[in-house]
Amino acid sequence: MLNVITVDEALKIIKEKFSAGKIKTEILPIDEALGALAAQAVYSVGPVPGFARSTMDGYALTAEDTYGAGESLPAWLKVIGEINMGESAEKPVKRGECFRISTGGMLPPGANAVIPVENTEEDNGMCLVYKAVSVFENVTKAGDDIKPGERIVNDSEYISPAVIGLLASAGIGQVTVRKKPVVGIISTGNEIAGLDEPLPPGKIREVNSHIISAFCRENGCDAIMYGTVKDEYDVIYTAVKKAAEECDTLVISGGSSAGTKDMTVKIIEDMGSVFVHGLAMKPGKPTIIGEIGGKPVLGLPGHPAACFFVTEIIIKPLVGIMTGRTVEENTMVCELGENISSNHGREEYLCVKTEGNIALPVYAKSGVMSVICRSDGYIKIDRNCEGLKKGEKVKVFLFRR
Amino acid sequence: MLNVITVDEALKIIKEKFSAGKIKTEILPIDEALGALAAQAVYSVGPVPGFARSTMDGYALTAEDTYGAGESLPAWLKVIGEINMGESAEKPVKRGECFRISTGGMLPPGANAVIPVENTEEDNGMCLVYKAVSVFENVTKAGDDIKPGERIVNDSEYISPAVIGLLASAGIGQVTVRKKPVVGIISTGNEIAGLDEPLPPGKIREVNSHIISAFCRENGCDAIMYGTVKDEYDVIYTAVKKAAEECDTLVISGGSSAGTKDMTVKIIEDMGSVFVHGLAMKPGKPTIIGEIGGKPVLGLPGHPAACFFVTEIIIKPLVGIMTGRTVEENTMVCELGENISSNHGREEYLCVKTEGNIALPVYAKSGVMSVICRSDGYIKIDRNCEGLKKGEKVKVFLFRR
Repeated sequence: MLNVITVDEALKIIKEKFSAGKIKTEILPIDEALGALAAQAVYSVGPVPGFARSTMDGYALTAEDTYGAGESLPAWLKVIGEINMGESAEKPVKRGECFRISTGGMLPPGANAVIPVENTEEDNGMCLVYKAVSVFENVTKAGDDIKPGERIVNDSEYISPAVIGLLASAGIGQVTVRKKPVVGIISTGNEIAGLDEPLPPGKIREVNSHIISAFCRENGCDAIMYGTVKDEYDVIYTAVKKAAEECDTLVISGGSSAGTKDMTVKIIEDMGSVFVHGLAMKPGKPTIIGEIGGKPVLGLPGHPAACFFVTEIIIKPLVGIMTGRTVEENTMVCELGENISSNHGREEYLCVKTEGNIALPVYAKSGVMSVICRSDGYIKIDRNCEGLKKGEKVKVFLFRR
Repeated sequence: MLNVITVDEALKIIKEKFSAGKIKTEILPIDEALGALAAQAVYSVGPVPGFARSTMDGYALTAEDTYGAGESLPAWLKVIGEINMGESAEKPVKRGECFRISTGGMLPPGANAVIPVENTEEDNGMCLVYKAVSVFENVTKAGDDIKPGERIVNDSEYISPAVIGLLASAGIGQVTVRKKPVVGIISTGNEIAGLDEPLPPGKIREVNSHIISAFCRENGCDAIMYGTVKDEYDVIYTAVKKAAEECDTLVISGGSSAGTKDMTVKIIEDMGSVFVHGLAMKPGKPTIIGEIGGKPVLGLPGHPAACFFVTEIIIKPLVGIMTGRTVEENTMVCELGENISSNHGREEYLCVKTEGNIALPVYAKSGVMSVICRSDGYIKIDRNCEGLKKGEKVKVFLFRR
């Protein structure tokens, strides 16, 4: 017999038991870190830019030399050289001298401002300056973008293209990020055959490991599929032991109920502990939540529709805790297009199609994958709700398209 | 001189020139196809399930044998064997006979219904049936989930975890998807140094290729970084030729203006055609849109902030066309927290921080990466707008966090 608890209670247990899990980290080249979360803050080493730069094409000079200059009374400065982008001046600027300089060029020692080319005239080695500039005018100073020792990435910050650009600008080529948790997946059942196996009469294709793997990878994990194993204690035990050693979390599909052939709960108990056996959800009642060596272990019902919804309702928040990511929900409020009868003391998940603002239930005799794929999302029906009326407002949890 | 056109005109040209581009396809194992778009519809081969299955633990029998049965007058059937999940019956059921059957078990030939175990009693090889069942009661028929030849995936459909599950259930292990377009990225400029290069005085770190690569990968492309090349016609020409052969799209960062050292426009003209040189956007004015061998080629300004916004405003829609994906926008409406003066006949992009519902501009002297990373998003200021007042409603385009 299952000792059923509510979904909310189960999520609370997951949070309590697994929130303190150790976060593994890895060091990645910045170009491979896209989409990861920083595992620690990053501080700059030197200033960015590393030197004062001109923001104009013009002449680098001493601002004081231009004071009082105007259209009718230009300042005269000797042009002693030219600085292009990427070059450094070979000699300093003294009072009465200037360098030709391009936008982005490095200011020579002694210069503290740039006069734009349009305010000057060059004649026979001399530059006529028709306008005064103040100190640091048309100049980006060293450290204007990033100061030495400044925190440029926060702990847990999402590594976006802009953050990658910022790290590159600071000359930082590697970043320490949270390693993706690895989810191991084992499918059990004498009736299931993997895609590369023959399909004799009476057997069906194994579906659940593909769903769980894709789902975990879509939500920031890596996944290892351990294939399909027979409903035999020793065979499952061996597979679970190996996977529990190699992975950070383990999902065992099938055999999660309380019948004589349902071995999952016994195996988790023998290797660790079981916190929950039975959830007040429909589909998905025979779900197990436990741990082996402190790692979360879930037992899921073999029925693909049940597996899908347990993945959505239970595994998604668990993965959120393990990855440190906020679980994004894509929802819309709709009006029900027809009456729905319910309920069974269990929170129920019903696939719907949306037409404009109307949600229409999609029923299926056997509640299988084709129904989910034909739907736009699902609604949750509270376990105490006795039915919903046509026209009632419902929140639709949209599937990604 | 640049012959500037508006952003809308540029996007129209991109749509006209590049929408008919050939879509490359590839065949992937379903577990590697997550997130791709199907390149053609997928049809089932056989029915799913492939045989009639029991939905209950009970007895498989001929429904007609139970007609008239009730609590006081049970039907008596001979138990001739047992069928577990994954097995097939060795012999057919005849009238007056039945098989013990588990949930998911394969109906034996001759059986057309299942009586649940709770409505029966077994005694000395005989099953007493206390309730009538109708034909196909408690049975999932062959093809109830998927019919033979049924279209199970549409052309262009997003390969979600549920679609992967559906394909697995139909025994389909591979799927033809749109291949990710490959974007080649070349950074030009004498002043830039790659992360693995020394940084002599006057040089700055190359930033743009990292931003563009991450952005394209975030939006469904692959990216190849061709490194940094000097501002020399022959050097850039050789790099562009190689990249244009190897990639589906090419982005050249730097040298996109109209100065003597700006070679990008000449090189694209010499190898293909230039459609646009100059966009009424700020930052990002010196942007080039052209083609080489029918492949889109973009020239981007070297300034990282300009590069960032051209990527956001121009490359994102182009990538949307090439990948066939809808470009998702994450926006929120805010009130401006202060007056903003504008404008220059160019659509302007201004970074903002959001505090609740208030958007506050984040200004920077040099408009560099740290400003973008400190901001929550940006607002667009129309090129004809002369300024925005504190309290005005603005649409904030949020950066992903």
